[in-house]
Amino acid sequence: MKTGVWLIGARGNVAAVSIVGAKAVASGITETTGMVTAREPLSDLALPEVDDLVFAGHDIRSQSIVETAEAASASGGVPPQSTIEAVRSDVEAVDSRIKTGTAINCGQVVGDIAEGNAAVNQTVPDLVSAIRDDYESFVAEHDLDRLVVLNVASTEPPLENTDAYATADELEAAIENDDRALPASVLYAYAAVSEGHPYINFTPSTGSDLGGVREVARRNDVPHMGQDAKTGETLVKSALAPMFAGRNLRVLSWEGHNILGNTDGLVLDDEANKAGKVKSKDGLLEEILGYETQSRVRIDYTPSLGDRKTAWDHIHFKGFLGTEMKLQFTWEGSDSALAAPLVLDLVRLVAHADANGESGVQPQLASFFKSPMAYETHDLSQQFEQLREYAHTYLPET
Amino acid sequence: MKTGVWLIGARGNVAAVSIVGAKAVASGITETTGMVTAREPLSDLALPEVDDLVFAGHDIRSQSIVETAEAASASGGVPPQSTIEAVRSDVEAVDSRIKTGTAINCGQVVGDIAEGNAAVNQTVPDLVSAIRDDYESFVAEHDLDRLVVLNVASTEPPLENTDAYATADELEAAIENDDRALPASVLYAYAAVSEGHPYINFTPSTGSDLGGVREVARRNDVPHMGQDAKTGETLVKSALAPMFAGRNLRVLSWEGHNILGNTDGLVLDDEANKAGKVKSKDGLLEEILGYETQSRVRIDYTPSLGDRKTAWDHIHFKGFLGTEMKLQFTWEGSDSALAAPLVLDLVRLVAHADANGESGVQPQLASFFKSPMAYETHDLSQQFEQLREYAHTYLPET
Amino acid sequence: MKTGVWLIGARGNVAAVSIVGAKAVASGITETTGMVTAREPLSDLALPEVDDLVFAGHDIRSQSIVETAEAASASGGVPPQSTIEAVRSDVEAVDSRIKTGTAINCGQVVGDIAEGNAAVNQTVPDLVSAIRDDYESFVAEHDLDRLVVLNVASTEPPLENTDAYATADELEAAIENDDRALPASVLYAYAAVSEGHPYINFTPSTGSDLGGVREVARRNDVPHMGQDAKTGETLVKSALAPMFAGRNLRVLSWEGHNILGNTDGLVLDDEANKAGKVKSKDGLLEEILGYETQSRVRIDYTPSLGDRKTAWDHIHFKGFLGTEMKLQFTWEGSDSALAAPLVLDLVRLVAHADANGESGVQPQLASFFKSPMAYETHDLSQQFEQLREYAHTYLPET
Amino acid sequence: MKTGVWLIGARGNVAAVSIVGAKAVASGITETTGMVTAREPLSDLALPEVDDLVFAGHDIRSQSIVETAEAASASGGVPPQSTIEAVRSDVEAVDSRIKTGTAINCGQVVGDIAEGNAAVNQTVPDLVSAIRDDYESFVAEHDLDRLVVLNVASTEPPLENTDAYATADELEAAIENDDRALPASVLYAYAAVSEGHPYINFTPSTGSDLGGVREVARRNDVPHMGQDAKTGETLVKSALAPMFAGRNLRVLSWEGHNILGNTDGLVLDDEANKAGKVKSKDGLLEEILGYETQSRVRIDYTPSLGDRKTAWDHIHFKGFLGTEMKLQFTWEGSDSALAAPLVLDLVRLVAHADANGESGVQPQLASFFKSPMAYETHDLSQQFEQLREYAHTYLPET
Repeated sequence: MKTGVWLIGARGNVAAVSIVGAKAVASGITETTGMVTAREPLSDLALPEVDDLVFAGHDIRSQSIVETAEAASASGGVPPQSTIEAVRSDVEAVDSRIKTGTAINCGQVVGDIAEGNAAVNQTVPDLVSAIRDDYESFVAEHDLDRLVVLNVASTEPPLENTDAYATADELEAAIENDDRALPASVLYAYAAVSEGHPYINFTPSTGSDLGGVREVARRNDVPHMGQDAKTGETLVKSALAPMFAGRNLRVLSWEGHNILGNTDGLVLDDEANKAGKVKSKDGLLEEILGYETQSRVRIDYTPSLGDRKTAWDHIHFKGFLGTEMKLQFTWEGSDSALAAPLVLDLVRLVAHADANGESGVQPQLASFFKSPMAYETHDLSQQFEQLREYAHTYLPET
Repeated sequence: MKTGVWLIGARGNVAAVSIVGAKAVASGITETTGMVTAREPLSDLALPEVDDLVFAGHDIRSQSIVETAEAASASGGVPPQSTIEAVRSDVEAVDSRIKTGTAINCGQVVGDIAEGNAAVNQTVPDLVSAIRDDYESFVAEHDLDRLVVLNVASTEPPLENTDAYATADELEAAIENDDRALPASVLYAYAAVSEGHPYINFTPSTGSDLGGVREVARRNDVPHMGQDAKTGETLVKSALAPMFAGRNLRVLSWEGHNILGNTDGLVLDDEANKAGKVKSKDGLLEEILGYETQSRVRIDYTPSLGDRKTAWDHIHFKGFLGTEMKLQFTWEGSDSALAAPLVLDLVRLVAHADANGESGVQPQLASFFKSPMAYETHDLSQQFEQLREYAHTYLPET
Repeated sequence: MKTGVWLIGARGNVAAVSIVGAKAVASGITETTGMVTAREPLSDLALPEVDDLVFAGHDIRSQSIVETAEAASASGGVPPQSTIEAVRSDVEAVDSRIKTGTAINCGQVVGDIAEGNAAVNQTVPDLVSAIRDDYESFVAEHDLDRLVVLNVASTEPPLENTDAYATADELEAAIENDDRALPASVLYAYAAVSEGHPYINFTPSTGSDLGGVREVARRNDVPHMGQDAKTGETLVKSALAPMFAGRNLRVLSWEGHNILGNTDGLVLDDEANKAGKVKSKDGLLEEILGYETQSRVRIDYTPSLGDRKTAWDHIHFKGFLGTEMKLQFTWEGSDSALAAPLVLDLVRLVAHADANGESGVQPQLASFFKSPMAYETHDLSQQFEQLREYAHTYLPET
Repeated sequence: MKTGVWLIGARGNVAAVSIVGAKAVASGITETTGMVTAREPLSDLALPEVDDLVFAGHDIRSQSIVETAEAASASGGVPPQSTIEAVRSDVEAVDSRIKTGTAINCGQVVGDIAEGNAAVNQTVPDLVSAIRDDYESFVAEHDLDRLVVLNVASTEPPLENTDAYATADELEAAIENDDRALPASVLYAYAAVSEGHPYINFTPSTGSDLGGVREVARRNDVPHMGQDAKTGETLVKSALAPMFAGRNLRVLSWEGHNILGNTDGLVLDDEANKAGKVKSKDGLLEEILGYETQSRVRIDYTPSLGDRKTAWDHIHFKGFLGTEMKLQFTWEGSDSALAAPLVLDLVRLVAHADANGESGVQPQLASFFKSPMAYETHDLSQQFEQLREYAHTYLPET
């Protein structure tokens, strides 16, 4: 069962580390630490093997995947240089399958990165048609049993008027009429689900969250999910906030300061792009706590950190007898090492859903996202439990 | 429905703040922040009102409860001086009901604190008999509908040979034969459950964990639970560890350093007493993670902190592609402000269990303890869920 | 020897705590901890006694000093309520001497705080004249031997075109011609030094830093100093940065995040006012390190913190063999408790300088300021050494 | 001018990284970041070039220097593998000059590491004589102009009865009489200074601190210095403590917790060896602050950290009006990357002192040590200033 993986932003850090990592796992030179699907009970499901994943994708940069991986290795040690060497030819093969993508409405910084490569002068219907052709040629050429499309491109500025595309009809009319407000993420997502390919939005960009795309996915029985992979500060937040809620401790303020040094940081240094990100990171407190609290998320670009990301969170809370107390944490992670295994997990799990006739938004995948498109809770442990329950519905009783 | 609350260690910090706090809640001058039972769905249960709790207890110190509360207020601001003033006469009334307890096998430091007040020269059967009399006189005098016994005394050195008291027969024979190895916490617990009074062990001392006491509780249909209230570093640990497990991130080491300045800290500065505490704090990682990891818990006495307690935890973990990362946190809490509302919660919840015929160890109370005597998981969110489920079995469907 | 202390912003937090503190020190109910002049060798100098300081000042608020102190006490515990009680009548006497000041060019937020009280509609020459009258009436009424003027008002937006006022002539012409660009801090400072009163700029506002004011101070032999008292994050920075320099460790980035909850924080939440502050905090790294480095200072308003201020600094540095390492610190201080004793120190020390014929900018006071107007180094220990050397020139050999 | 460098513990981490680093600096493949002598004004002194250093030494392990460097590289990334490769043959040449040393009185763990290699069965006079022969053969064989002996071996348990060796006569009689209490560090130091070789004690072991060794050094006009290189937590302490002192802020408690994972950590895990270390780290606060304060230094062995060392310090202090505040820091460093450049600095600087007739203890080197054997202050900035002043006495006025 060959499963194609089409990555939007295939030459970015997360994609490069995912591809290198998948090849390294497949060849047994690295462990599966960090992959949720390598752990029981998910490891007992009939998921596509990492070895059977065939990678390709869109990008707007000319820098090769190996070059991106080497730069990431130099700036943060991930992946190790020796691992890149061991899988170099496999990764170069993926690189030869990368098509030039569009950066329409992705903001100024992304435009600069594109260096004129991006397809921006085509009409919207032509862009969609070209994307579809790229997907289908890949499926045909590699005789794939299934194709999963996954967006790991840099964060776009938020789409303002989402109501205008709330239905399939409205969206398809807008595409037809060359509506220049539509951002790249929506075009990629629409092209995927309209062709019947499962879609994952790893980013805070609009993607399949738009009403119109959701309707098309439902119509075509395609599973999809997003938004914005939960890999760092927000992951910790979703583990800690339930503690305050459960103990009836009142959070007076929750301040978060993120510093990061990779392209993601550079793009987010543009206030327009950052707007989408901060919104996404900031939503869960109110749901978990049950009340509004003073909350702020700062994201700053600190080039010296390379791929490393550090967050400092300061939580000021009140307990019994009006007593004020504090919890502070620092999280020092490698963005791509945290994200890459989740890319593989999500591909495998959405492929499983597709194979089993699950369609539409996939709530069992909520634990992977900062802003899950369908969910019962932001409580991380409860989200994990939901995923375990999903697995158990497909596993024989033991 | 008047519910008696008999506190072992009634003049200690936790007891004093619990009593002051209960009176302040009852008179409406403080909020119920920090009380789990003040939050839905528990607040919908038919629990004894805080106003209907009648306090008394044992202690070995001559310092009054008000004096303890004032010292705590001076050293850490909890409870506020104005709150103490407002409830002073109520608290003095409680003080008049305190009986001199025993500090047998509680270690040198506790012995020093007792200043000769403790009942140490009596035989074990006489001690048990005196404790029973204290319980029953209190019930009779105040015409109580129910008595809950709760241990908030300083941590004892661990009882070595617990196997020798694994059955009710063995334990009762040992008491009869004046076995001088039996520590105070066991005598108090045995006296409680043998008289049919629900018992809560808020400390890491042996208490009702002993096989013999458990058997007596079962025999008498008495609910009880322990050990060691989860109020600080371990609480955070039980919220964070499931994140590493669920994401298949490998914890390489988890180092914890606690500094605290109250009597608890002073007692724990004695290595013998500390042994019981560290053992209790250190158990949950392996269960949650599913493997053994390098783990250490340091507890140091820093008098300048007064009632404040600060923990620094350093978690070194490995992710995808062998990437090493870190999470560090500092927790700055007031020990008694965190513990006191849980005392009230546990009294109310174990009284509810008793009223509803639940007996033996109470697993739905696992979230309150570092070393729950019965539990399914140390995962804090799952433990909260278990408590919610318990509540829902007693609530009408909505 | 009665020394008058005229505070610009006399009803703000720092002023209120300074006044309460001075009265408390004078009456012996608090210690001098935090006062540099209470420590050898400065304590051996012939400084005005705290008891001999007579306070007055300008403000634009109607809230009294006692009210400010009580609000500060409620929100952060400083000063203790009992201390306020003990000195209440003394402080009320000060309050009766407060005159309405001007908030010209102090920004929108300060304008809002003024609630229409500030003198904004007068011409600039009239404002200066009124300020002078206020100073002189105070001196006359209280038969003062010396008057020190000290600015503790909220930070103004920076004055753009400082070159236009580089000389005494230019400045005085501008005042004469009702130049509406001149900010309040300059008017207060000019009025002080032109009347021969020593002046201290505790804030980042322009004050006596302007060329024209400096020239008037030199002409009149008046000592003065500023800018921006070094009380928190920058203090720590100036202690730590020399370590990196001296060990030839390369600072790759120095990120600072400040959260604070008092009026200072509220005013700084306005980007215009913040500009002055951030500029001032950020200057010392390059001087100490000897090269430019990535550096950022965030200041965010977190009301829940009250008068408390927390800074997180993350220092990423490179050592031998290209090894990357990190130092992080958190500083949790009370802004006014840190600032108030320095107000008393600076008054006493600039009065001493004046009494001893020292005039112009006072470099021995550099350790007190983030942006000292004259200095040899930002290295805190070296700055302390300079102050000790100043003291020793006035002390008999021992 | 060829300068020999004889390292006691030449196959340990610090030595290996020093040797690899020196070769890398000499061949221009790494920068001199971290070397104090690479910075003005020291870089203007006539110091031996790094290129002219010839390394040799004693050790008790059979593991080669390259193997140690490779293990350090694998566990903490220092030195980079590519650097080791580039200088491998040079380092192997050093390895061929390593002689088997003694581990007498170095404690159990060091004995275990020795695996029977150490010379323990010889008499003390024979050990001293053998060490001398090793020094002199090296000088002769390589035609060295000067030999510097530097101790970087693991920390010994402290020597109890130091008074018994307070004079040269007493020490020499003890050696003669085969006094089995003398530890290895004293024998190495005595052999060095008695032969006229400058000596540096990079460790907390006794070494040249003993009265008898000091006297021999003075008699022979030999410069020497120690003890215990200041590379991490204590370095930061000596930068921060002067801030509290200078501002008259009262330190209520200073708690330090160090976790580290290299051989140093393993050896310090033995309480006997740790005793020497903790004593050395803990001395400076009282001198800088001018009063005794609650202070504790914990050192724990956390193997997962490899060569990385993390310290958490919690400083609780009191300011004006009794206000309690806090400073906390975490220091995440590579022990050997911090220590190695100081090894090179100290060799160069003590060789300079020797060349210029400076003899006995060298106070200008105080900034390098936790427990400087002669010093005016522990204040880091003041110590740096002392070193600059030393340099300026040898530099032409500019």
